[in-house]
Amino acid sequence: MKLWDKGISIDKKIEKFTVGNDRELDMYLAEYDLTASKAHARMLGKVGIMDQQEMDAVLKELAKLQEQLENGQFQIEEEFEDVHSKIEYELTRALGETGKKIHTARSRNDQVLVAMQLYFKENLKEIHNKTEDLIGVLLKLAEEHKEKLLPGYTHLQVAMPSSFGLWFSAYAELLIDDLYLLDAGLKIVDQNPLGSAAGYGSSFPIDREFTTGELGFSTMKYNVVAAQMSRGKCERTVTSNIASLANTLSRFAMDVCLYMSQNFDFISFPDELTTGSSIMPHKKNPDVFELIRGKCNKLQAISNEMILITNNLPSGYHRDFQLIKENSIYAVENIKEILDIFIHSIASINVKDVDLNDEKYKYLFTVDSINDLVMQGRSFRDAYKEIGEQVQNDTYSPSGSKKHTHTGSKDNLALEEIRNKIQKS
Amino acid sequence: MKLWDKGISIDKKIEKFTVGNDRELDMYLAEYDLTASKAHARMLGKVGIMDQQEMDAVLKELAKLQEQLENGQFQIEEEFEDVHSKIEYELTRALGETGKKIHTARSRNDQVLVAMQLYFKENLKEIHNKTEDLIGVLLKLAEEHKEKLLPGYTHLQVAMPSSFGLWFSAYAELLIDDLYLLDAGLKIVDQNPLGSAAGYGSSFPIDREFTTGELGFSTMKYNVVAAQMSRGKCERTVTSNIASLANTLSRFAMDVCLYMSQNFDFISFPDELTTGSSIMPHKKNPDVFELIRGKCNKLQAISNEMILITNNLPSGYHRDFQLIKENSIYAVENIKEILDIFIHSIASINVKDVDLNDEKYKYLFTVDSINDLVMQGRSFRDAYKEIGEQVQNDTYSPSGSKKHTHTGSKDNLALEEIRNKIQKS
Amino acid sequence: MKLWDKGISIDKKIEKFTVGNDRELDMYLAEYDLTASKAHARMLGKVGIMDQQEMDAVLKELAKLQEQLENGQFQIEEEFEDVHSKIEYELTRALGETGKKIHTARSRNDQVLVAMQLYFKENLKEIHNKTEDLIGVLLKLAEEHKEKLLPGYTHLQVAMPSSFGLWFSAYAELLIDDLYLLDAGLKIVDQNPLGSAAGYGSSFPIDREFTTGELGFSTMKYNVVAAQMSRGKCERTVTSNIASLANTLSRFAMDVCLYMSQNFDFISFPDELTTGSSIMPHKKNPDVFELIRGKCNKLQAISNEMILITNNLPSGYHRDFQLIKENSIYAVENIKEILDIFIHSIASINVKDVDLNDEKYKYLFTVDSINDLVMQGRSFRDAYKEIGEQVQNDTYSPSGSKKHTHTGSKDNLALEEIRNKIQKS
Amino acid sequence: MKLWDKGISIDKKIEKFTVGNDRELDMYLAEYDLTASKAHARMLGKVGIMDQQEMDAVLKELAKLQEQLENGQFQIEEEFEDVHSKIEYELTRALGETGKKIHTARSRNDQVLVAMQLYFKENLKEIHNKTEDLIGVLLKLAEEHKEKLLPGYTHLQVAMPSSFGLWFSAYAELLIDDLYLLDAGLKIVDQNPLGSAAGYGSSFPIDREFTTGELGFSTMKYNVVAAQMSRGKCERTVTSNIASLANTLSRFAMDVCLYMSQNFDFISFPDELTTGSSIMPHKKNPDVFELIRGKCNKLQAISNEMILITNNLPSGYHRDFQLIKENSIYAVENIKEILDIFIHSIASINVKDVDLNDEKYKYLFTVDSINDLVMQGRSFRDAYKEIGEQVQNDTYSPSGSKKHTHTGSKDNLALEEIRNKIQKS
Repeated sequence: MKLWDKGISIDKKIEKFTVGNDRELDMYLAEYDLTASKAHARMLGKVGIMDQQEMDAVLKELAKLQEQLENGQFQIEEEFEDVHSKIEYELTRALGETGKKIHTARSRNDQVLVAMQLYFKENLKEIHNKTEDLIGVLLKLAEEHKEKLLPGYTHLQVAMPSSFGLWFSAYAELLIDDLYLLDAGLKIVDQNPLGSAAGYGSSFPIDREFTTGELGFSTMKYNVVAAQMSRGKCERTVTSNIASLANTLSRFAMDVCLYMSQNFDFISFPDELTTGSSIMPHKKNPDVFELIRGKCNKLQAISNEMILITNNLPSGYHRDFQLIKENSIYAVENIKEILDIFIHSIASINVKDVDLNDEKYKYLFTVDSINDLVMQGRSFRDAYKEIGEQVQNDTYSPSGSKKHTHTGSKDNLALEEIRNKIQKS
Repeated sequence: MKLWDKGISIDKKIEKFTVGNDRELDMYLAEYDLTASKAHARMLGKVGIMDQQEMDAVLKELAKLQEQLENGQFQIEEEFEDVHSKIEYELTRALGETGKKIHTARSRNDQVLVAMQLYFKENLKEIHNKTEDLIGVLLKLAEEHKEKLLPGYTHLQVAMPSSFGLWFSAYAELLIDDLYLLDAGLKIVDQNPLGSAAGYGSSFPIDREFTTGELGFSTMKYNVVAAQMSRGKCERTVTSNIASLANTLSRFAMDVCLYMSQNFDFISFPDELTTGSSIMPHKKNPDVFELIRGKCNKLQAISNEMILITNNLPSGYHRDFQLIKENSIYAVENIKEILDIFIHSIASINVKDVDLNDEKYKYLFTVDSINDLVMQGRSFRDAYKEIGEQVQNDTYSPSGSKKHTHTGSKDNLALEEIRNKIQKS
Repeated sequence: MKLWDKGISIDKKIEKFTVGNDRELDMYLAEYDLTASKAHARMLGKVGIMDQQEMDAVLKELAKLQEQLENGQFQIEEEFEDVHSKIEYELTRALGETGKKIHTARSRNDQVLVAMQLYFKENLKEIHNKTEDLIGVLLKLAEEHKEKLLPGYTHLQVAMPSSFGLWFSAYAELLIDDLYLLDAGLKIVDQNPLGSAAGYGSSFPIDREFTTGELGFSTMKYNVVAAQMSRGKCERTVTSNIASLANTLSRFAMDVCLYMSQNFDFISFPDELTTGSSIMPHKKNPDVFELIRGKCNKLQAISNEMILITNNLPSGYHRDFQLIKENSIYAVENIKEILDIFIHSIASINVKDVDLNDEKYKYLFTVDSINDLVMQGRSFRDAYKEIGEQVQNDTYSPSGSKKHTHTGSKDNLALEEIRNKIQKS
Repeated sequence: MKLWDKGISIDKKIEKFTVGNDRELDMYLAEYDLTASKAHARMLGKVGIMDQQEMDAVLKELAKLQEQLENGQFQIEEEFEDVHSKIEYELTRALGETGKKIHTARSRNDQVLVAMQLYFKENLKEIHNKTEDLIGVLLKLAEEHKEKLLPGYTHLQVAMPSSFGLWFSAYAELLIDDLYLLDAGLKIVDQNPLGSAAGYGSSFPIDREFTTGELGFSTMKYNVVAAQMSRGKCERTVTSNIASLANTLSRFAMDVCLYMSQNFDFISFPDELTTGSSIMPHKKNPDVFELIRGKCNKLQAISNEMILITNNLPSGYHRDFQLIKENSIYAVENIKEILDIFIHSIASINVKDVDLNDEKYKYLFTVDSINDLVMQGRSFRDAYKEIGEQVQNDTYSPSGSKKHTHTGSKDNLALEEIRNKIQKS
């Protein structure tokens, strides 16, 4: 059964091609379509398109379907092209003429729009919260290991002393930037699109302020054409903001993989978090972090797909928009899983004692040596030359790490100030 | 002269390859490097690394360079690899030992970081303002043409009545979403990175709170590793947020080009805004909007470049980061130009009277016809079937457009509510 | 059961995260892993690592599994992490010690490599053939409709006369370019990687020339490190070449959608190929071509994903490579479906008679008018001016379309020459 | 002066926006426009549109301009919007009416098309040759250092023995795949588009076979619509194929940067090829290879830009196509420079002696140990278990590297076979 069925038999192959994997994806949206349908029904009751009895009947049926969904009994059978057809069919089967009234003053495009935005809204909050959890874990690790030094690299060359405290809290602070973007995305999806119908509104006297309140949206996307065009913009925004978070996680994962290499040997993980090789019995590979890295890199490709699908299309709905559902849902579901795994895994990291007296780290302290000379009154450039000559003549010997006093340095991590930024995000 | 010159002759070809077009790009940054150098000098004075006299001398020289810049006399000659070398050279030439002190407790990477963020900060505000201007123009056009109907399309097929009022204000409201993203970007670049030095801070007793205040940043990026890693993240964020704005403008430009086609003929522009053909004397082509579209599409490709350059690199500075300057500056400068041209051009749009009684627009009103039946008590699905049969049998005749009453519809544009959203952005 | 199982219980969540959807994807690869395993077994027999009896036993079991696969009875149960574990398990279950020998001198990475390349090789040929079929259909349509004129557009403005013959055969000829790229991709995947093991070869005396012959590869990827690095390169190449084909199809689909708009009305499709609207009973939407366009646009995003996952990784296998399987298989399977649907759908296109005498097409013939003057001896630039003035003064009247004689023009389509290019691809 | 000037003053700002940086870019195309103009003039002479005297005069003027170009005297002054206007202006200035005739039966779009394809054709050959040179250098280095062992890594973990011979020749063999793609690109651009005019051919009796021969194209793009649509496809193909080459070089550069790190210390470069730090006097950074990596990563972003600009546009010329010139020329010019620098730099690499007896490389040889057991008759799986237990109990001691005999392994590099592949590309 298709909503637009005109009694003409459609070639099976074409049908499969057009329906795609909507049935599967729509399981993520069922909850939100039911919520939106309830709000729509109440609104139809309020403005008199349904009478009280009709409205109550429809709401009761929708509640039954919600219960089925919660119990895992709800499914979209093969005869339905999507969740929207399925729900309307159930209402009509149960209520006859009354059931048919639910589609008054709305279109399927409208339904997808509002369901997607509700889905994004709830999930962006969840992603925000999980990210905050991860920031908490990282700040705790930073505090815990703040005394442990690490070589700092530039150009992958040994450069200046760093520390595990700096390393963990650097990513914590970067993740706060990602919260800002997630919140901007949240603001964009938090505008009720319902009432756009096919993209040009409706001649029915619908009450969009009412559904905005019912659905808990902060405001509405007023212009019905803009509301329709939010499809595409929301997906692009959400996937782009998730990509920013993914980029931060991916870079952390790269560090983890590198630092686990025998050539760095700064950290390790318990056996439960490493995997072996089918031919090399000694291997304890950082597969979890490699997969975090790879999956985060995949996520960074998705907003470009959203652009490629929607770009250069004139305004108004096009069927192409059906295709942006898949990977925007993929992005949301994956980043949640990645955050869970990340939090779970990083918590069991084993931080090693790195011997900075090793010959290969000898020049870590040249800048400190220069600074000593400067504090004795030399200009920076002259001190730089002197130490440089010592290095060249192989007469340089490090005097050990100096305390760094300024805010945000290895010996003054400002963890509390970083934590406070979250409150303001 | 290069800051890191160790007296070894460097192959010319290599030099050209490594310096790239920094000299040219750095003209955009000179102003900000001077501002940041002044703040750094004042801080060095405050903490006693420079004495009062030295600080005053340095500030005076920097002021001279700022004056040169304002007068168009400042240039980065070929012997300098970038603006930072040039400025330090000028200080040293004028002040000898004292000039050399300016580089105490900072690194070139630090300088680029802070200059880029100051550049982004100022420009994101300017882009925000220009976007607000454009929104204003569009809302005014919407008000002006709110009575003029247009066919609305879905799937590029004639669908339901729309209007010029809806069309103009749709893009206005979508642009407000872009403001939200620009503002999130602004928040991210508005964190002082100065003091990160080579990415691991400094053993000098620098005062980062002081420079944060001097430079007018809202807060600082506390962690020095995070501050260094902001290079890349800022560029990715800024170009991604500009891309969102570009996407909105590109889609508008596509509509303009389509609506100017003889097959639509909804709008035209004065001759000054169209261009001709080298072989077809009748052509008045919408080149300006095609170039807006194309340039906006180019802008949408840039954040992916930023990701490709920085992705999978371990933490710490890499020279690759030099390459992200070019196209992030390109994005900023281009979107400003595009906004200027857009505002200039759209203001002279000529809106035509579209005859909705034309045969090809006949079915624009079927939904209104259905709604008439529903208001008479029929279920939506039954009314849909009846009108559908009339269409199939060719007995359908439109009864003309009905007034749409709900918020955001063609006859109730809610322009004031849309305008109010800007305040809250 | 995992090949690398070291008896340590692995957290379930982590397991799900690491296994991903390999079981599902590997059903596409089962056939090729069996083929490659047979070749490997024969090679082990040839070099004496298996004796004749062992080899025969292994080959017999592999043949049984192939039979199961053909009958639809082969499945990868949940206890296996991938098809490779499954097959080795079956051999060991049936043959004990002998079964365990199959993994001698190869690694799982090796198996994925060779299976993917065999999969790509077969499928690139199939995609090549389907593309040739489509070219054939388009050339036939061009021949059939070569007399029917169309307005030609530049800048979406009416420009010069074109024809359905030109339109159909333009895409035919462009698709031939895509064949060149597919064939280059084929050359790249047609190099046996088997024998690379974990990426550094094997101390066993394996015979790679033998497996190259057995598997029908044209050559081998000699260097074992290069063979391993082909993972990533093959996927990038294949998806990039498929993207080129997708781009051609997407642009054709855009034309179709535009030409079906009531404002152009150049073509139509039978009802079986259009879909309706849930609220507008008159709609006959070109969903099939919109989905072709959208799906082709999705395909154009995939090679960037392949780059993002593999870029900036040092040489040697990383687990991230597991993730490139999914969308490279997606690209292959989708382009085949799209080609099938395209061929099926375009064949039933209904080409309309376009009235070029309609007022809006009046200036289609200005270039022909100029050329008339030139053939009478005027310089092109002067003739251009004269006709331009007629247009400006509204005194221009078209003299009708002239015959174009040159190769590749509307009246001399050179369809045979185009067809001949395929032979040479 | 603009070819399409209709005497109407165009706003200066708009003019700058529309002309863009064409003047600068067109200096790369001047040579090819002159070549194509000569062929076009000869063809006009052949078919009688110019008489012998006119043709000779035009050819003579074009030859003068070519001479100016070779002497560095040719420039595109600010009054011209592009090279095509400039050349036509010069002909007209010198020859009056006769000069005006050059534009007969062609359009500017036509000129850009043919000039770009000639530019690509010549440059793809040059890029092919430089790539062959690099392959030669790498094979030579492989031969030279074939005895020197390196640790091989998987998952960045110490895995199995590799060698400098394997490392160098791996990239050599991968670059051969890139040659295949370059050659497919060459085939695509090697089809004469001239004669397409504005995209719909010409009513003049032009002889496209003649210009195809004159210009040395292997064939022509017959269909004039296809010829016009090659603009976009050629750029996409060329930049995509360059990206493949860039990916190979980028990954090599990543290895170089990693192997230069003190934590690996496998290679070094002479001081002339490293750069210093503005604050750390000991630094010898691999900037050249970091910039190769970064620039190659930039190149990998460009084909997506080409797609974004041209995607979803209906057939026929759009002004947006002007914008694809810039970065496709950028890609060509940059990859040539990168190849030059790469060849120059890699040649002076200093390969170190890596001590594989170092504790951290201890398990490099476990697979060899397993294989020893297998050659003594154990099944692979059992031997794997035994060595695995030794590793776990810390009783494992390596027996040293075994010779690998098979083709393409560290002790049998098959360099000659790899070299032979080039011949067949």
